[in-house]
Amino acid sequence: MRTQVAIIGAGPAGLLLGQLLHAAGIDNVILEQRSGDYVLSRIRAGVLESGTVRLLDAVGAGARLHAEGLPHDGFDLLFDGARHRIDLAGLSGKHVTVYGQTEVTRDLMELRAGQGALTVYEAEKVALHDFDGDAPYVTYLDRGEQKRLDCDFIAGCDGYHGVSRASVPSRALKTFERVYPFGWLGLLADVPPVSHELIYAGEERGFALCSMRSNSRSRYYLQCALNERVDDWSDERFWAELRRRLDPATAEALVTGPSLEKSLAPLRSFVAEPMRFGRLFLAGDAAHIVPPTGAKGLNLAASDVHYLSEALREHYAERSSAGIDAYSTRALARVWKAERFSWWLTGLMHHFPDHDGFGGRIQQAERAYLISSPAAMTALAENYVGLPF
Amino acid sequence: MRTQVAIIGAGPAGLLLGQLLHAAGIDNVILEQRSGDYVLSRIRAGVLESGTVRLLDAVGAGARLHAEGLPHDGFDLLFDGARHRIDLAGLSGKHVTVYGQTEVTRDLMELRAGQGALTVYEAEKVALHDFDGDAPYVTYLDRGEQKRLDCDFIAGCDGYHGVSRASVPSRALKTFERVYPFGWLGLLADVPPVSHELIYAGEERGFALCSMRSNSRSRYYLQCALNERVDDWSDERFWAELRRRLDPATAEALVTGPSLEKSLAPLRSFVAEPMRFGRLFLAGDAAHIVPPTGAKGLNLAASDVHYLSEALREHYAERSSAGIDAYSTRALARVWKAERFSWWLTGLMHHFPDHDGFGGRIQQAERAYLISSPAAMTALAENYVGLPF
Repeated sequence: MRTQVAIIGAGPAGLLLGQLLHAAGIDNVILEQRSGDYVLSRIRAGVLESGTVRLLDAVGAGARLHAEGLPHDGFDLLFDGARHRIDLAGLSGKHVTVYGQTEVTRDLMELRAGQGALTVYEAEKVALHDFDGDAPYVTYLDRGEQKRLDCDFIAGCDGYHGVSRASVPSRALKTFERVYPFGWLGLLADVPPVSHELIYAGEERGFALCSMRSNSRSRYYLQCALNERVDDWSDERFWAELRRRLDPATAEALVTGPSLEKSLAPLRSFVAEPMRFGRLFLAGDAAHIVPPTGAKGLNLAASDVHYLSEALREHYAERSSAGIDAYSTRALARVWKAERFSWWLTGLMHHFPDHDGFGGRIQQAERAYLISSPAAMTALAENYVGLPF
Repeated sequence: MRTQVAIIGAGPAGLLLGQLLHAAGIDNVILEQRSGDYVLSRIRAGVLESGTVRLLDAVGAGARLHAEGLPHDGFDLLFDGARHRIDLAGLSGKHVTVYGQTEVTRDLMELRAGQGALTVYEAEKVALHDFDGDAPYVTYLDRGEQKRLDCDFIAGCDGYHGVSRASVPSRALKTFERVYPFGWLGLLADVPPVSHELIYAGEERGFALCSMRSNSRSRYYLQCALNERVDDWSDERFWAELRRRLDPATAEALVTGPSLEKSLAPLRSFVAEPMRFGRLFLAGDAAHIVPPTGAKGLNLAASDVHYLSEALREHYAERSSAGIDAYSTRALARVWKAERFSWWLTGLMHHFPDHDGFGGRIQQAERAYLISSPAAMTALAENYVGLPF
């Protein structure tokens, strides 16, 4: 089998890339290790920057997003017992859209299926070959049968644990990492959200996030120690702890209910450089991870595949390698700004071990300065809604 | 001898406080361990916020400052070979005034002398007594003779190494500190400055600052290791290293000459809380130190003594202790914002040990974001010209 671009991974990065290439008339095949149902069962955040929405609109995947997504013109920071609204629309002229990543994936999957474009699910033993030469190819097992996909380029959209980055010789990669001394314990429940906008709470007992998937489904998070076990957190314990991290009025308004899902995730910043190796490109989580504070993960995947699809379009339409040669630098420039923002917002809102020391006082001062300064709030807002790409 | 307020230290903090109290009709005596000539021989930075200038004007010490000081409407950040101007006036509506701290001290000394207010220089063995009660007093040796100064309040304006903070029981103090892994090597020379505005340079070889005292006297600094010795730095070596840390055009324009003074200072952030203990108040360096990046030291001393003079005026004029009770909290709120800014600007512009790691990339991203964002530049500018007091 032959295609122009072999895409590894059918998450939102790979699927959106597939649609962007399709729109540019570039043939592509997606290989996905898991089943379609498994991909749709992964629960991820969903705060979409306006640039991400624009890309989804451009490929025709925006209809349900606009019908069901929740435009948010702001969010609240809660500390020292008081909620402080960040007026995204007023400060930046833009808003974000709350729409679960799972829904984005579903919309893109359905769109792709309707076009008859090929996605091979449950592709096993995917292996990348000769991407440092002119004739790369990918081998895999399709229902036990050995297959070979010849291609011009390979796009590694298969996440942090995927085979794409792992296929690059380690001497060719430089990695950057920051591990945070805590994780997020998340709970999903079919209860109305406590507020119509997100609340990022940074109280003495630790960070908490009040978010939602819809007007009837809420997603709450608690900062917790890395050695916590989900089994030790009954729903009752979770709700009680969440209440303690909110101001009295918000805690009072909280509607609780049985959890649909609970999970614990560590927080990490990670970047691999460069994002191109010959005819292999990395995009999204395959190349970088952000801590979830600020919800940049999906949005960075979107800007990566935007740059990549532009580069490939230039290659095929204009016989120019300029975009391909510039891809890594362009993508990384935006990635690092989002990494910086995610790291900064994580630092601003979490409880750190040196809370009682210099670092804790700097955090307090940064919060006090932030809410006193339209300029500082604008800087926060413009990063939150997404820097331009 | 009796006075209303005994001021320890005749640096700019003590002298300005003396003038502010004098203007409010509050009697005060300053005790200074050193001679007047020694105080005037100390070389310190001199970038005055508009609020500091306003205070100096208010006490009638602004004439020479306005005649000889250099109003600066901006400064340059230099990195990756390019200078980026921060338009203070355009972004914040304010400017700063370059005027040596020594000159501020001299103006205040002369003003005080003209009023016949008492400053005891070379006061030895200064000791603070009973400030936790209603009748504090200070003892000292004046030319070998034991003296006692009874007072209502004591203002500790005697710097980091002074007796005032050292007189507070350590159990009553909480201190916060950040030590940076480098120092500043400074050189003063009678050469015209390389630029009419300051240049903060953050190149691979380390930070450098091009500043000035006047249009004919320049002050340059180089980030250096803490174990460097001034004696190892000939003027030639200093100028050559400075050139290497500037862009070619700026290096070319640099005018060198024999140094008048060279010195090395470590960089440190330090805050002691609270700033009041009964009838003893700390102000300026006695309570807090900032790294020199951003030049906040003198300006924080000015806002401290502004708050303190207001509090004492309220006490005497309105018989209200509200200002006195609020002094520490009010002063510390502004101190910590300036500590945050100084720490941030130090981090933005210096070369750190993890330059090749995550921290170095975050620094690069922060610089790239800063010069791309009017909001981020405004936040920098409003801190640089001084947050309101």
